[in-house]
Amino acid sequence: MPSIAIVNGPNLNLVGTREPEIYGTKSLDQYLEALKERYSNLSITTYQSNIEGEIINFLHDCRGRMQGIILNAGAYTHTSIAIADAIAAIEIPVLEVHISNIMAREDFRKRSYTAPRCVGSISGLGLQGYELALLYFMTSIR
Amino acid sequence: MPSIAIVNGPNLNLVGTREPEIYGTKSLDQYLEALKERYSNLSITTYQSNIEGEIINFLHDCRGRMQGIILNAGAYTHTSIAIADAIAAIEIPVLEVHISNIMAREDFRKRSYTAPRCVGSISGLGLQGYELALLYFMTSIR
Amino acid sequence: MPSIAIVNGPNLNLVGTREPEIYGTKSLDQYLEALKERYSNLSITTYQSNIEGEIINFLHDCRGRMQGIILNAGAYTHTSIAIADAIAAIEIPVLEVHISNIMAREDFRKRSYTAPRCVGSISGLGLQGYELALLYFMTSIR
Amino acid sequence: MPSIAIVNGPNLNLVGTREPEIYGTKSLDQYLEALKERYSNLSITTYQSNIEGEIINFLHDCRGRMQGIILNAGAYTHTSIAIADAIAAIEIPVLEVHISNIMAREDFRKRSYTAPRCVGSISGLGLQGYELALLYFMTSIR
Amino acid sequence: MPSIAIVNGPNLNLVGTREPEIYGTKSLDQYLEALKERYSNLSITTYQSNIEGEIINFLHDCRGRMQGIILNAGAYTHTSIAIADAIAAIEIPVLEVHISNIMAREDFRKRSYTAPRCVGSISGLGLQGYELALLYFMTSIR
Amino acid sequence: MPSIAIVNGPNLNLVGTREPEIYGTKSLDQYLEALKERYSNLSITTYQSNIEGEIINFLHDCRGRMQGIILNAGAYTHTSIAIADAIAAIEIPVLEVHISNIMAREDFRKRSYTAPRCVGSISGLGLQGYELALLYFMTSIR
Amino acid sequence: MPSIAIVNGPNLNLVGTREPEIYGTKSLDQYLEALKERYSNLSITTYQSNIEGEIINFLHDCRGRMQGIILNAGAYTHTSIAIADAIAAIEIPVLEVHISNIMAREDFRKRSYTAPRCVGSISGLGLQGYELALLYFMTSIR
Amino acid sequence: MPSIAIVNGPNLNLVGTREPEIYGTKSLDQYLEALKERYSNLSITTYQSNIEGEIINFLHDCRGRMQGIILNAGAYTHTSIAIADAIAAIEIPVLEVHISNIMAREDFRKRSYTAPRCVGSISGLGLQGYELALLYFMTSIR
Amino acid sequence: MPSIAIVNGPNLNLVGTREPEIYGTKSLDQYLEALKERYSNLSITTYQSNIEGEIINFLHDCRGRMQGIILNAGAYTHTSIAIADAIAAIEIPVLEVHISNIMAREDFRKRSYTAPRCVGSISGLGLQGYELALLYFMTSIR
Amino acid sequence: MPSIAIVNGPNLNLVGTREPEIYGTKSLDQYLEALKERYSNLSITTYQSNIEGEIINFLHDCRGRMQGIILNAGAYTHTSIAIADAIAAIEIPVLEVHISNIMAREDFRKRSYTAPRCVGSISGLGLQGYELALLYFMTSIR
Amino acid sequence: MPSIAIVNGPNLNLVGTREPEIYGTKSLDQYLEALKERYSNLSITTYQSNIEGEIINFLHDCRGRMQGIILNAGAYTHTSIAIADAIAAIEIPVLEVHISNIMAREDFRKRSYTAPRCVGSISGLGLQGYELALLYFMTSIR
Amino acid sequence: MPSIAIVNGPNLNLVGTREPEIYGTKSLDQYLEALKERYSNLSITTYQSNIEGEIINFLHDCRGRMQGIILNAGAYTHTSIAIADAIAAIEIPVLEVHISNIMAREDFRKRSYTAPRCVGSISGLGLQGYELALLYFMTSIR
Repeated sequence: MPSIAIVNGPNLNLVGTREPEIYGTKSLDQYLEALKERYSNLSITTYQSNIEGEIINFLHDCRGRMQGIILNAGAYTHTSIAIADAIAAIEIPVLEVHISNIMAREDFRKRSYTAPRCVGSISGLGLQGYELALLYFMTSIR
Repeated sequence: MPSIAIVNGPNLNLVGTREPEIYGTKSLDQYLEALKERYSNLSITTYQSNIEGEIINFLHDCRGRMQGIILNAGAYTHTSIAIADAIAAIEIPVLEVHISNIMAREDFRKRSYTAPRCVGSISGLGLQGYELALLYFMTSIR
Repeated sequence: MPSIAIVNGPNLNLVGTREPEIYGTKSLDQYLEALKERYSNLSITTYQSNIEGEIINFLHDCRGRMQGIILNAGAYTHTSIAIADAIAAIEIPVLEVHISNIMAREDFRKRSYTAPRCVGSISGLGLQGYELALLYFMTSIR
Repeated sequence: MPSIAIVNGPNLNLVGTREPEIYGTKSLDQYLEALKERYSNLSITTYQSNIEGEIINFLHDCRGRMQGIILNAGAYTHTSIAIADAIAAIEIPVLEVHISNIMAREDFRKRSYTAPRCVGSISGLGLQGYELALLYFMTSIR
Repeated sequence: MPSIAIVNGPNLNLVGTREPEIYGTKSLDQYLEALKERYSNLSITTYQSNIEGEIINFLHDCRGRMQGIILNAGAYTHTSIAIADAIAAIEIPVLEVHISNIMAREDFRKRSYTAPRCVGSISGLGLQGYELALLYFMTSIR
Repeated sequence: MPSIAIVNGPNLNLVGTREPEIYGTKSLDQYLEALKERYSNLSITTYQSNIEGEIINFLHDCRGRMQGIILNAGAYTHTSIAIADAIAAIEIPVLEVHISNIMAREDFRKRSYTAPRCVGSISGLGLQGYELALLYFMTSIR
Repeated sequence: MPSIAIVNGPNLNLVGTREPEIYGTKSLDQYLEALKERYSNLSITTYQSNIEGEIINFLHDCRGRMQGIILNAGAYTHTSIAIADAIAAIEIPVLEVHISNIMAREDFRKRSYTAPRCVGSISGLGLQGYELALLYFMTSIR
Repeated sequence: MPSIAIVNGPNLNLVGTREPEIYGTKSLDQYLEALKERYSNLSITTYQSNIEGEIINFLHDCRGRMQGIILNAGAYTHTSIAIADAIAAIEIPVLEVHISNIMAREDFRKRSYTAPRCVGSISGLGLQGYELALLYFMTSIR
Repeated sequence: MPSIAIVNGPNLNLVGTREPEIYGTKSLDQYLEALKERYSNLSITTYQSNIEGEIINFLHDCRGRMQGIILNAGAYTHTSIAIADAIAAIEIPVLEVHISNIMAREDFRKRSYTAPRCVGSISGLGLQGYELALLYFMTSIR
Repeated sequence: MPSIAIVNGPNLNLVGTREPEIYGTKSLDQYLEALKERYSNLSITTYQSNIEGEIINFLHDCRGRMQGIILNAGAYTHTSIAIADAIAAIEIPVLEVHISNIMAREDFRKRSYTAPRCVGSISGLGLQGYELALLYFMTSIR
Repeated sequence: MPSIAIVNGPNLNLVGTREPEIYGTKSLDQYLEALKERYSNLSITTYQSNIEGEIINFLHDCRGRMQGIILNAGAYTHTSIAIADAIAAIEIPVLEVHISNIMAREDFRKRSYTAPRCVGSISGLGLQGYELALLYFMTSIR
Repeated sequence: MPSIAIVNGPNLNLVGTREPEIYGTKSLDQYLEALKERYSNLSITTYQSNIEGEIINFLHDCRGRMQGIILNAGAYTHTSIAIADAIAAIEIPVLEVHISNIMAREDFRKRSYTAPRCVGSISGLGLQGYELALLYFMTSIR
């Protein structure tokens, strides 16, 4: 049974209550729990932290345990070379997900340190982006 | 039955024979034909052109006929304000797809005129990106 | 009787139906037809294409036939060195018209390749800009 | 009877004697006097100053007295945020006019602080630009 | 009794009537008059001009007469090296005040020539910013 | 009784001992304790952390508990989109304070991610800036 | 007998009549016809189009038929990532030719998308550049 | 007897009292008076204003009256396109003088709008720069 | 006996297993342990954290306890003004070490916030860089 | 008999032994000797120096002696305004040659100071570029 | 008797024959010889080289022998940090002279590495600039 | 016995007498002589030149004779692509040394053409940097 980690970065713990016109009103936690149930043929681990270095710690811990990682690094996407280095270091395929269409927002969200180190990205498709990412890994791992 | 257009831009007619280390060896045509068969509950129209203005013409023609558009504008993604304007003009949700991870390539592929006008984007997931885009529309249209 | 061409570029065929808060609700076609009738002392030719190269072809064809050209190159204004070169090549006075005030929109609309090759420009005055351009040529040609 | 102000900025008092290859040999004063006579159905007020702050003072004074303003801010177009703020503050439609085609001159004339606050602009059409601007207001005011 | 000057630059004479969503509806004049009354233990002089050079003249005149200056240079904040030089020349502490949060507005308002020459700045706190600035001087002078 | 949080970021725990020519010799802790005593009609909570993500955690915890936040994000002001996002997410008015005049220091301190999300800022007024910020909230809350 | 294609882009159909101080007075068509006669030991195909996408179509068609391509993409040299991608895709050596010395003209002609994908370039040597390119291929093919 | 104007811009009225480490302790007024006496074979007119537009007015007034102008535009050197335009308009040779070495100061003093319109410049040589400029005109006029 | 701290930042805990073509195959931990043994005349403390703020905490704790610090801040070198401020605050000489030659890698690794606050740097010499740094401190401390 | 100089700049003395994947394995000296023999109807002078100023000296010496110069300035192409000035000063046609395709290498090789002063350039065609340059001069001189 | 060196850089040996519309037709050598005669109360040494490093050598040799240096570094002004460092190293006042007005020429001539290290500069005044520089030293040395 | 060259560039012959606050008061010559004596198990060759091209000549001469090169290119570090090319061409490991911490000085010293071609760099450690470089080569050669 393939193991997939879903890692969420800063402020994503507030999704559902925060800026609903951008992120919607559904709680991310509840959504991910529902995903776990629906995809019971996968071993799904979820993690959230607002601390850049803890995300790095978690990514390191994935080595040897995960076949794929779904990462929404939130604002760290645009400022963290350290997380980008961690992705390169762990040699596990990472798929970047963004709930909103980051290319349609502020200019500083157009620079991504993490994207070049990931296999690809899904953005702007709301919470459904996480599910599509799972579907990608179900096909590509194996 | 929802109608979806899949629009491909310049040089994508060569996918399968061109630069296989970037785009793979599978023909895009064959892949899209297989998609049409698998998703027979959708009315899928495919279109490819190397001419920027013909892509605009096709997008205009989608008005009143399509519920969603999957667009891989290829290199025009990075140079065509005219296609971006067409997306804004037609008021149909457009989802951008790229076969390769454009953020991991040349710097000039990091500027996108079309992305801010689309609902979102999927990139780097190979031909599978088209299928995930279809799945998105199956859920979001309705 | 002086001959004037009015050339419109990409997406301008949709004016009247597209983004009415920017371009208004009046059809450009109908407006230009009315202009032709009102200015029957001028030989007015209208042309629209979404294809950059076809606009170049048309500009070439104007040589020896037109005394003035009114050009709304739409989005190609900001990306097409080729059209700018065509303007320089044909040696007919070209007056640039924009329906909206392009200086009040996105930054990428502030760069104009065509403007330096034109005699001047009128922008932001809606469809009326075309009529003012005609009035300019009525005075300046002769 | 609609009231229109025509405001000219620095160095425009020299038009007719200064750099005739750019600005022509006709005096701006004489031209505007002729306009006033020709358009006697309009109440036209003309004003010129080389002092940025005096132009701002004049614009303020237009509130409640003018229905439209034709502004050639000269070099202040490219350097004066203060005049741009005045335009925004007075809530009267302002139409920018330039005698020469500023897009065909030095790069620093391509940045305009005032244009985004105006309804539109006419440039490169010589002194005739002022008359076309009057015609615009004759149609749009009412 | 310490002497404090409050200097206001271009367009600030319109505060209360201009763009109320940015600057509020209270007249700056009335507000400053009320401040003078409330802080009768200070000798407060107010000055407003739309002319950059007159503001410089006033700043020069403060030498030997004022212990502190509260300066809202308005748009000249972003374009006037001359006022910045005047601040450096007069060797009186100057505190910059802005009614609106200039960092949340256009990019060109993020460059400040005057700020590096001032002791500090208060922005975004509405008219109250002037009062806080007075309180600062009441403590720091002496 | 209004609740106000005073949040300090990296290296501010050293104020009083660190670079006294920039930050002075008074301990920030002692200063804030004195403020609490003086403003006993306010419920003041202070917090300091050198860890970006912990500051985000604290800001999240303020929801529903604080009416205003005084934030000196120190160096994170210039690098943290994540803290800026947190400010936007929690919908509590945040007032930015800097002890030194950041506009008079290195160029990289002129870019602020947090300022556009705050109601305003006070900088360069030393420790007194915190007291002025309190006074602002005493007036504006209610 | 080696097959060589000579491909010319926008506005090059006007060479001989257009801006003679830059491009000379000799017709490009006649020059290329003379070249074909002189180099009868080569199979030379010539093609010209003003339409970006048609040039891409022609380049695609060269696959399997041409051993070398001489390309003067005109203004598209500086704006077309799509043509550059086509060059990379077809895996035929392409030699870039420019009639004028593009490095001595406007700044925007100094950026070339196509050059990095070509084997090399010849510019500024007038129509003779085409002949030197032929000579290169006569030596290098084989 | 040749007529020379010496024009000084903003803050130069304070030379001698202002920032003596940059500008020295000698009054500019006294220095220029001494120059007038020493060079009694020249008709020297001096002018100073802190107002950009008044400097423009004075430059205009020099037409037909002066054979040369020595201009220290102070901070307006770096921000005033309007003064630069005035220099171009009046067609009198203007020699730029700066007391300090502006190339050794802030970066924003390295951009000069006026210098390209002047015959040349002298900077960094203190008040003596004015005298050397006079000597230049004594040789070059005639 | 001089006390030296060796501080390592994000992802350096993986050295030896991560990207061996850049960082080699030797474990950093083992290397530093061997260094401690070899230089028993020094009191060497090692510290590693992936969390920016914890590195700041550790640097603060060095005050009064260390005579020199060897810092490999990893990716934070390029993004952390906060660590740079901590270096400036603690007034202990810090020597920057990088295992790889950061000037030969991505452009974003060429900007260093920390380097200007350090006494110097050693980069590209592999793990040996740490030993050379120790040798430097053995000479310079005292 | 026309006299042509072939001038080579820094590091070109190593061609044939240096970085053969870029410059090939043939010695430039031997190649140029063979050229001299083959084109005995031309007077060909060759010169190489690694010293910028010696190249300038040689170019000066060409005045009155050479009808054309073939210049491969190597790395000085991108950094030497002085050589560019020498080309402009000597008024002999200079044709720039590069062995490799400099547009396909590092970004800093895309800026050329010398190219705008030359009649044209040939790059990327290996040592053959020198021969094509000779052929150009054989036609154009006369 | 004060000793002054006049140092001229690349291509200045051609003044009088080179580009007379920029540099005039008078030989620099003859001009400087005449200066030496006219100012026989000064010990004037002249030096010219096209080699950057030889100019540095000469500047070094001036230590202890010269009281002032007049330097026209020609194109090296804009590219040579090494000459700028030499000026800083020798601690003799250096006055920069340019024959043409470099601010009115290409943009790359607006950057000067040497100017910030000199006491000042004179430019655009033709050969007379050298004489004015001598006059400056006659006054300032002593 | 390994052969090591120590190469010093422009102005380094003055170390010990020049700007002692940056470079110290010890003569570089004497220091290197002492190094040679101390490391008699190495064959150390020292070379200094102020001429860029002579440094290139020397580097070329090292081929086949040296196992390592310690290079302090001084100001040429930041401007010389030619020296960087020479480093790449000779295929001997080069270690860059700077006496001062170049990252803490002017911005133009932060760009290094040579660093990416070297194995690594040591900067800011004074003359001791040369010795540490020797120690590096003693370990890494062999």
